Amino acid sequence: MLTRIDHVGIACRDLTATIAFYESTFGLSVASLEVNEAQGVKEAMLHVADGPAGSSYVQLLEPLGPDTPVGRFLERRGEGVHHVGYGVANITAALATIGASGVRLIDERPRHGSMGASIAFLHPAGVGGVLTELVEAPQT
Amino acid sequence: MLTRIDHVGIACRDLTATIAFYESTFGLSVASLEVNEAQGVKEAMLHVADGPAGSSYVQLLEPLGPDTPVGRFLERRGEGVHHVGYGVANITAALATIGASGVRLIDERPRHGSMGASIAFLHPAGVGGVLTELVEAPQT
Repeated sequence: MLTRIDHVGIACRDLTATIAFYESTFGLSVASLEVNEAQGVKEAMLHVADGPAGSSYVQLLEPLGPDTPVGRFLERRGEGVHHVGYGVANITAALATIGASGVRLIDERPRHGSMGASIAFLHPAGVGGVLTELVEAPQT
Repeated sequence: MLTRIDHVGIACRDLTATIAFYESTFGLSVASLEVNEAQGVKEAMLHVADGPAGSSYVQLLEPLGPDTPVGRFLERRGEGVHHVGYGVANITAALATIGASGVRLIDERPRHGSMGASIAFLHPAGVGGVLTELVEAPQT
């Protein structure tokens, strides 16, 4: 069902500084920079690699305020890995299968994610403590 | 410098149960099952995808005891993402470049990792809270 590791989502306090760090230290470059008001984040997708099922990214997330999911994560855990996003070919089918297996879904239906993708989150309590995101890339 | 997301390393309390969950829920399959005494873990590599620079995996880690790095992580943080591993073409060159940039290295020299790879860890304090691993796949 999973076609690739689409991205690792990393919570940071200063998006500009963290982008600069990943660029200078690891040679990554920014593929997309967006504000997602619904999720309460300013985010950058840094391109790592291309593959047959799509590309892989480091996703850097700075909260728009303390009372947002990523803001609360930073308060509780500090900077670090926030979630893991996996590619799927058909997110509606994947959600139906995973939901039927008993895993608790945060999103019953796909919503808008980075770079035009359709995304949905699975609850970490159902996935061994890992906030897990499914990503269906936009049709090109 | 980074050629791919090689793996996401996930700490779990029960490797057998967590493997079964990833197999049944996400359709992944075990590519390798190893005990690494030096790192104090029993670990499984679950294959996610192949790419031009190598494959990507979910790495599940169960500590061999409480007084190991992953055992202490579980005690402190609970189950969840433990580290992120990125592919590099030449780990010795990558370590030299990253070390020269001022990032604190856990491993000054590569050591033995999963599936015959050469690996080295960067300290999370130097990488925005993310325990970061470099992975050079074995020559085939």
